[in-house]
Amino acid sequence: MKSPYRQDFPALSRQIDGQVISYLDNAATTLKPRTVIRAVTQYYENNGANIHRGKHRLSEEASDAYENARTTIARYIGAAANEVVLLRNTTEALNLVAGGLELEQGARIVGTLDAHHSQILPWRRAGQLELTRTDARGRLDREHFRQLLRTRPQVVVLTHCSNVTGVIHPVEELIAEVRAAGDATIVLDSAQYLPHGRVNVHALGADFMAFSMHKMLGPSGVGCLFGRSELLAGLRPANLGGGMVDWVDLAGSVDRRVPYRFEAGTPDIASVIGSAAAIDYLDGLDARHWHEHAGHLCSALVGGALEASGVRLIGPPDVRDRTALVSLRLDEGVPTGDVARMLSDSYGIMVRSGHMCSQPLVTELAGDQILRVAAYLYNDVAEIENFYAALSELLSWMAPRTRTGAA
Amino acid sequence: MKSPYRQDFPALSRQIDGQVISYLDNAATTLKPRTVIRAVTQYYENNGANIHRGKHRLSEEASDAYENARTTIARYIGAAANEVVLLRNTTEALNLVAGGLELEQGARIVGTLDAHHSQILPWRRAGQLELTRTDARGRLDREHFRQLLRTRPQVVVLTHCSNVTGVIHPVEELIAEVRAAGDATIVLDSAQYLPHGRVNVHALGADFMAFSMHKMLGPSGVGCLFGRSELLAGLRPANLGGGMVDWVDLAGSVDRRVPYRFEAGTPDIASVIGSAAAIDYLDGLDARHWHEHAGHLCSALVGGALEASGVRLIGPPDVRDRTALVSLRLDEGVPTGDVARMLSDSYGIMVRSGHMCSQPLVTELAGDQILRVAAYLYNDVAEIENFYAALSELLSWMAPRTRTGAA
Repeated sequence: MKSPYRQDFPALSRQIDGQVISYLDNAATTLKPRTVIRAVTQYYENNGANIHRGKHRLSEEASDAYENARTTIARYIGAAANEVVLLRNTTEALNLVAGGLELEQGARIVGTLDAHHSQILPWRRAGQLELTRTDARGRLDREHFRQLLRTRPQVVVLTHCSNVTGVIHPVEELIAEVRAAGDATIVLDSAQYLPHGRVNVHALGADFMAFSMHKMLGPSGVGCLFGRSELLAGLRPANLGGGMVDWVDLAGSVDRRVPYRFEAGTPDIASVIGSAAAIDYLDGLDARHWHEHAGHLCSALVGGALEASGVRLIGPPDVRDRTALVSLRLDEGVPTGDVARMLSDSYGIMVRSGHMCSQPLVTELAGDQILRVAAYLYNDVAEIENFYAALSELLSWMAPRTRTGAA
Repeated sequence: MKSPYRQDFPALSRQIDGQVISYLDNAATTLKPRTVIRAVTQYYENNGANIHRGKHRLSEEASDAYENARTTIARYIGAAANEVVLLRNTTEALNLVAGGLELEQGARIVGTLDAHHSQILPWRRAGQLELTRTDARGRLDREHFRQLLRTRPQVVVLTHCSNVTGVIHPVEELIAEVRAAGDATIVLDSAQYLPHGRVNVHALGADFMAFSMHKMLGPSGVGCLFGRSELLAGLRPANLGGGMVDWVDLAGSVDRRVPYRFEAGTPDIASVIGSAAAIDYLDGLDARHWHEHAGHLCSALVGGALEASGVRLIGPPDVRDRTALVSLRLDEGVPTGDVARMLSDSYGIMVRSGHMCSQPLVTELAGDQILRVAAYLYNDVAEIENFYAALSELLSWMAPRTRTGAA
């Protein structure tokens, strides 16, 4: 049965060499529904003006649409509009916090091994980062996490959901442990979680939370940073310039209030406006149907991985607390990138290969490149079955050749 | 006579309260031609995938389109593709350089009074910034500039064209003077110039040059930084994360080569792809016709300002070395913002009011807020005449009232 959402995504009506497309690279970015594309186009066709401080009608309209989008995004995560900074991507959001906290040299920071590079590298630059181990299935070593908390870190940086294993961490529990252990600032990367689940960020209790609209049906170019007001107010802006100051003279300048002081220069107006349409789309879904649908996708992905030969599932062998995503390690000697390419070129199936910008974890759990299959609401179970059938066909054909070649 | 380009801009077919729109806020951002909107839409409708490192067809197509856009932009300014970093806006580009040079505290930096805030504030944070004076018309005090060069600055930050006066500085001469005086790094803000004139950046001789695609018909969300390869290579990246590293392990990481090391995270793929269409549009113009057309617009703007009563022209009273832009100081007591609003609401004329993110210069030359009228290729002389007629009508009606009110 086709996903009822599929028809909303124009890119899925495209064929490649006569093949219907299966887009299963959703953890990298999602496709965009017609309503999002339309919102972007409408801004350009009917307006196109710059926002803020323009007193003319087009500018005011654009400013309203931009600020309404901020409110829409904020409301979706249970935040106030002035707690949400609009940036380019999650990476920029995490870097803004890592640099903006202005930690002392050598400040202790605790992270997790399954973090994306963007939740590792900025923190290594900001202080002394230690990563919580995971078990062989990618679940966090809770005892190690508690040990690290006892070192009294200034910052704890968490990954809501791994983009490699699909594991959703028990963030509420982790945050409670951090709070019990000291007064660390908690920075949460929810880029992989928010496309799949709702969050009330104040109930959750993170100090900062970053996510990307382009991973949840929105246009490219929009990453969001939630920050509790009092913490945002203390953050050093990464970029200075127009739009973030109230006053500049020869002696100095006065910053605008948050969140504007973090948004210097002309922002990506069209993509921010389009982001509101993405939230509206997600908000309009029948939550129960979507949840069930995601469960079916997840079961098909995990079940298929456990049954398939020539592959090893990277991540837990069950469907609890995970998104509809699996990573697979192919047998030694099978070139993962070539498999991804052939899945695309011969079967129309788009999956990702490589280290997933999460190389420490992938090295630890898989030892080499992996193939990642990430489903989203427009996918269906049949596509996942087709993926495993295609993979099996390819591997049966490639593996012997590779072995011969290597002999 | 209508501009022959007007029909290419869908937003201009819109009416507001029955009024045809005159969009004269082009120094803030330009409207987008149909081809640019189409390029953005097509990416979303036919693709939507993420770029770089994906081995599947959609990702490779998107990556090709993205990198082709970089090449198109680079070629337009006479640079190599790997000398162009794709960012959000000029502000981010200038901040990247200001922070990335890692100057010693108190490093001497020479700038100009007519700089945009984004070419002032990042440099004040990076070192000791001194601004070259201008004369009362906004032309640079060349003697003062030479004096400041004698202090042996480490960096000289220039503004190619003022967004307040429209004055185009003799950048070639200034750069020659900097080179003769020492070995300062030269950082040029060309955001206001490039929409109006071509540049060969290597012939020009700047070390870094920043500009925004959204000010030259491109989508919102794309600013570009040109940097000479050897200087780019030495710049500290502002954002760390995915896409900018070749290798990450528990001990450290290896950055990718330029320009990728400055582009962490998922970029604004659609807007970058759309930027190539903007360059194609500009490249496809009959240069002589456009030049003549711009000359007519400029003459009408300057001529109108000199004839109008109740306004003072901020900037030179002639049309040499300036873009089709004038800033006007209204008579004391006339509320500039209200005039801008009424021009929009009653006449469909969109101009900007305020300090133009260039407050030091506006304070110096005008003492208060100004009205800025910035034309572009889709405007025509009749629109500018209409603007002055409308302004005159408004002022004749407002000025006495204001005087009465103040009495």
